[in-house]
Amino acid sequence: MTPGNALDRLTALLSRLPGIGKKTAGRLAYHILDTDPAYAHSLASELDNLHDAIKRCSRCGAYTESDPCPICSDPSRDRALLCVVERAQDLRVIEESREYRGLFHVLGGLIAPLEGVGPGDLSIGKLASRIQEEGTRELILALNPTIEGDTTALYLQQFLKEKLKGSPLEITRLASGLPVGGDLEYADRLTLSRSFRGRIKL
Amino acid sequence: MTPGNALDRLTALLSRLPGIGKKTAGRLAYHILDTDPAYAHSLASELDNLHDAIKRCSRCGAYTESDPCPICSDPSRDRALLCVVERAQDLRVIEESREYRGLFHVLGGLIAPLEGVGPGDLSIGKLASRIQEEGTRELILALNPTIEGDTTALYLQQFLKEKLKGSPLEITRLASGLPVGGDLEYADRLTLSRSFRGRIKL
Repeated sequence: MTPGNALDRLTALLSRLPGIGKKTAGRLAYHILDTDPAYAHSLASELDNLHDAIKRCSRCGAYTESDPCPICSDPSRDRALLCVVERAQDLRVIEESREYRGLFHVLGGLIAPLEGVGPGDLSIGKLASRIQEEGTRELILALNPTIEGDTTALYLQQFLKEKLKGSPLEITRLASGLPVGGDLEYADRLTLSRSFRGRIKL
Repeated sequence: MTPGNALDRLTALLSRLPGIGKKTAGRLAYHILDTDPAYAHSLASELDNLHDAIKRCSRCGAYTESDPCPICSDPSRDRALLCVVERAQDLRVIEESREYRGLFHVLGGLIAPLEGVGPGDLSIGKLASRIQEEGTRELILALNPTIEGDTTALYLQQFLKEKLKGSPLEITRLASGLPVGGDLEYADRLTLSRSFRGRIKL
């Protein structure tokens, strides 16, 4: 084969990215080769720099260039609200909705016994200390409406109730139901049943 | 936003790749951040190295680490056959089919007047000299069965007939028709009509 080893090695590395199969990886590698070398070099330098530039916030666990992160150190944030998310990237979506002005806590995963992820693998002990130290009044669980999300929400509720006995902490969870712009006809049974149970008075 | 500039810059660069939108680019960037830094560093070093390691073969135009490329310098190849492809990456697919044992010539594009690509932008003059120098007997046009591919094939046929007057060069084109494993029911009208015109006697 004419295309040499450098191209094959790049293709192999790209195909390790999620959602990028061998064929797509090959197409991307050829595209990069066809493009101005400056593009490959900027991409290389950003990749080299990435893990040095971006750390985890020592308080909330979010990805950040400064520690504590801009959200944790923003005095205009409502410190009585703490929003629990599974992964650091979930913060971005919530921030972009501009609906929420409290603090965040990144769990680092969801309880999934089949994949060997237990409560001890998540940042749960730290969550409990933060609630006590920061005087959180409402804990909003922004976990995916999946089996793992439901299990983790249930576990957190029971664990924190026990751990923070007597505290007035309120625990809530994001509403689950029909997506805006969605069509009743295409809603699955579970989503529909949740949207019935969570119906609101007009 | 907590995720800092390094992440945004990487996302912006990744979203310039074909088929990678802003959302996918963000997901990839977070995935790279979540993964062992060694992965980001190997990807960076392959990207930095790519354009230095891979050049174009001065004879056929294929991507190669050595010049002339392994195909052009392989004495077991049938030098009477020359296969014309649009882009260097088309070589790989043809090589993988193991159907062809001749030489290649990369045109570097297809004639597309609407996009401002004329015959002068393609490696056509060089193709004519190669045919004369190498004593090519059959020129196989392996161009996409699209309007641009058809136009280019027609142009090449007329241009070479004029240029190589009196030469016994035979020009052929890859058969167009139903894809293997395809279903008649889903074949488009043009493909079906081509497969009728190109039908073969059993």
